[in-house]
Amino acid sequence: MDTQISTADARLDKLAEVAVRVGLNLAEGQELVMTAGVDALPLARRITEAAYKAGASLVTTILSDDQSALARYKYARDESFDHAPSWLFEGMAAAYREGAARLAIVGDDPNLLAGVDPAKISRANRARSKAYRPALELITASAINWTLVPFANAAWARTVFPDVAEEVAVAKLWEALFAATRADRPDPEAAWAEHNATLLRKRETLTGHNFRALRFSGPGTDLKVGLADGHAWMGGISTARNGIQSNPNIPTEEVFTTPHAAMTEGTVSATKPLAHGGTLIRDIRVRFEGGQVVEAHASSGEAVLQTMIGTDEGARRLGEVALVPHSSPIAQSGLLFFNTLFDENAASHIALGQAYKKCFLNAKTLTDEQFAQAGGNSSLIHVDWMIGSDQVDVDGLDAAGHATPVMRRGEWAI
Amino acid sequence: MDTQISTADARLDKLAEVAVRVGLNLAEGQELVMTAGVDALPLARRITEAAYKAGASLVTTILSDDQSALARYKYARDESFDHAPSWLFEGMAAAYREGAARLAIVGDDPNLLAGVDPAKISRANRARSKAYRPALELITASAINWTLVPFANAAWARTVFPDVAEEVAVAKLWEALFAATRADRPDPEAAWAEHNATLLRKRETLTGHNFRALRFSGPGTDLKVGLADGHAWMGGISTARNGIQSNPNIPTEEVFTTPHAAMTEGTVSATKPLAHGGTLIRDIRVRFEGGQVVEAHASSGEAVLQTMIGTDEGARRLGEVALVPHSSPIAQSGLLFFNTLFDENAASHIALGQAYKKCFLNAKTLTDEQFAQAGGNSSLIHVDWMIGSDQVDVDGLDAAGHATPVMRRGEWAI
Repeated sequence: MDTQISTADARLDKLAEVAVRVGLNLAEGQELVMTAGVDALPLARRITEAAYKAGASLVTTILSDDQSALARYKYARDESFDHAPSWLFEGMAAAYREGAARLAIVGDDPNLLAGVDPAKISRANRARSKAYRPALELITASAINWTLVPFANAAWARTVFPDVAEEVAVAKLWEALFAATRADRPDPEAAWAEHNATLLRKRETLTGHNFRALRFSGPGTDLKVGLADGHAWMGGISTARNGIQSNPNIPTEEVFTTPHAAMTEGTVSATKPLAHGGTLIRDIRVRFEGGQVVEAHASSGEAVLQTMIGTDEGARRLGEVALVPHSSPIAQSGLLFFNTLFDENAASHIALGQAYKKCFLNAKTLTDEQFAQAGGNSSLIHVDWMIGSDQVDVDGLDAAGHATPVMRRGEWAI
Repeated sequence: MDTQISTADARLDKLAEVAVRVGLNLAEGQELVMTAGVDALPLARRITEAAYKAGASLVTTILSDDQSALARYKYARDESFDHAPSWLFEGMAAAYREGAARLAIVGDDPNLLAGVDPAKISRANRARSKAYRPALELITASAINWTLVPFANAAWARTVFPDVAEEVAVAKLWEALFAATRADRPDPEAAWAEHNATLLRKRETLTGHNFRALRFSGPGTDLKVGLADGHAWMGGISTARNGIQSNPNIPTEEVFTTPHAAMTEGTVSATKPLAHGGTLIRDIRVRFEGGQVVEAHASSGEAVLQTMIGTDEGARRLGEVALVPHSSPIAQSGLLFFNTLFDENAASHIALGQAYKKCFLNAKTLTDEQFAQAGGNSSLIHVDWMIGSDQVDVDGLDAAGHATPVMRRGEWAI
């Protein structure tokens, strides 16, 4: 792997710059808390350098190790799986409350826990989620500037490119990551500024239209997605409550908003497989009535799909609709990444489950009651799956049913 | 380095067992907080496994990275050096208060900060010490079971063996570490039980004698070290306030007690160089009058020595006297390790500066005033240096000046 990284040095430095200057927009004197797998150390070191050059007061990286994580599943007593390092997560939350920014390097082995008792995983995840909640709430509420950036972990690369040697797979994954993060551009910061401006224009145009619904038409798809009352489109740059404008996801290609939970009708066919909890669900085909999934099929993994939509009442209804042009770098790669940060940016998509409160014109004052009344969906799940391609058209419908072209053959028409 | 580690696999596993079962004596259901450099991951993983096998509820390792640490000194703004990750250290203290055990893998690059502005290092250390104090106080007060174990970091190995190739140096250092930690024995736990029993017998014998002073005689040395009133000898196994008996240092060879700050007389010559703050101080020769250093010389590094003893009033007086037989594995290696965990276990030694409150018969109830009145020294420093060898004799003196042989030619005579 070292060989791959050293040949990619210049682009790794650019990725580190993108992470600090675009992803975080780190303020002078701001502290940074980073998390990364030990494999990602070559990038973590470059981000540390870039952060200090940008004026960080202190960079602290919490490194995790897959083999140590596996040792727990292999050797720990049963009681262990209800424990989590609350002291560490509470410490991180304290750092955020004191003003620290947050960066996570992602790129885990998608198959790390294959063969581990799912009951243990589930208990460990629940304990971890509970302990992590104070920190996560500060992040999801955008109290601070935060971002995610990718690293081409070897096990991840083997999953994306199973038919080539590991070093080739890692090199190919890096090519895709550098393209998607724009770290391969001569001036990545300028490319991001341009990209963010494009996303902002689309957000403003779409929000301005105030469509009542979007209609998706393509092979196996004739779907009308009702939009929540007072919805706003988001995507790209976002302003944290500390006033800093940053890009929480590197890469990001989507603009997205909140559908109306009761107003989706018709049939939709997924355009890519969905990697969900270690299972690949292929050829998803779903029919909605009154906002609710009433039929769901898949050519493989259908049982997992049925279990997923059976989680709770909201798991059968939409919580997100997002538009991504087919010409975006991630879509053009043609790859399935088995990683949400990438796959949700590969095509227009919908998500079953929890909706975003931030996707409303009056997001800052919206109560839970107003959110539900406007059509905002609630659920324990939020699962994105791809429904866009170069054969799918999207129209915006007004209250009278009048159609405005939004996308044609997967490209912007608005 | 990987080659060295894989050939040493079995002994690394044994070292991990020694760390968990002897060093920590980890209790079933106890949480473990470990710190290690990323280089030490092969040992950290084995300790994680051994800890889970011993019933750990959770093992959390905080990994540090030398290159990231250096990036700060290279690129951070001046204000950075007054910052420390208080949130992390406060989290660790919280874990200890909740009952977690503590393990640190040591073996840093002794020259990591060579060339860095000493003023920045000093400020960063001060900020770190202040932030770490709540956690350190729980450790030094033995609130919990804790231990230190070594890992043969490549940069450390190059410093100890500067004249051979790095891989040879690492292999040679591992040999020395495995011998010193008894991980090379067929049954390391049994070897430690025997060793701890020996140290305990020596402690009890020496404490029982209640000597008024120790006299060291050898080449260039004729020194009488007065002992504190009511002193007790410590060493080897120790009982934490949580009731767990553990070995805070792996390796350890010394038994030690508190001298009387006002009652040391005569001349002493160091038997090994002292590695102090990046400087090697050679051929230290010091004369005491009334417990105080009145003359101090060295063939190199004398300025550093003078600065050190000028730190404060207590820096000219003794805070520890320790006995280590010349036949101990570390002394037999003949090496200078540039690492206190090893060098202080290589020979009988004295330390200038702060004395230990635990080395008193009535340690649990001892007030600061009683400690000072009994002869306990106070200082910001505590610097050990070696005065024992196979040419040094030690006698215990009673109130009448009657001598009892304690060591002859560096070996126990008591």
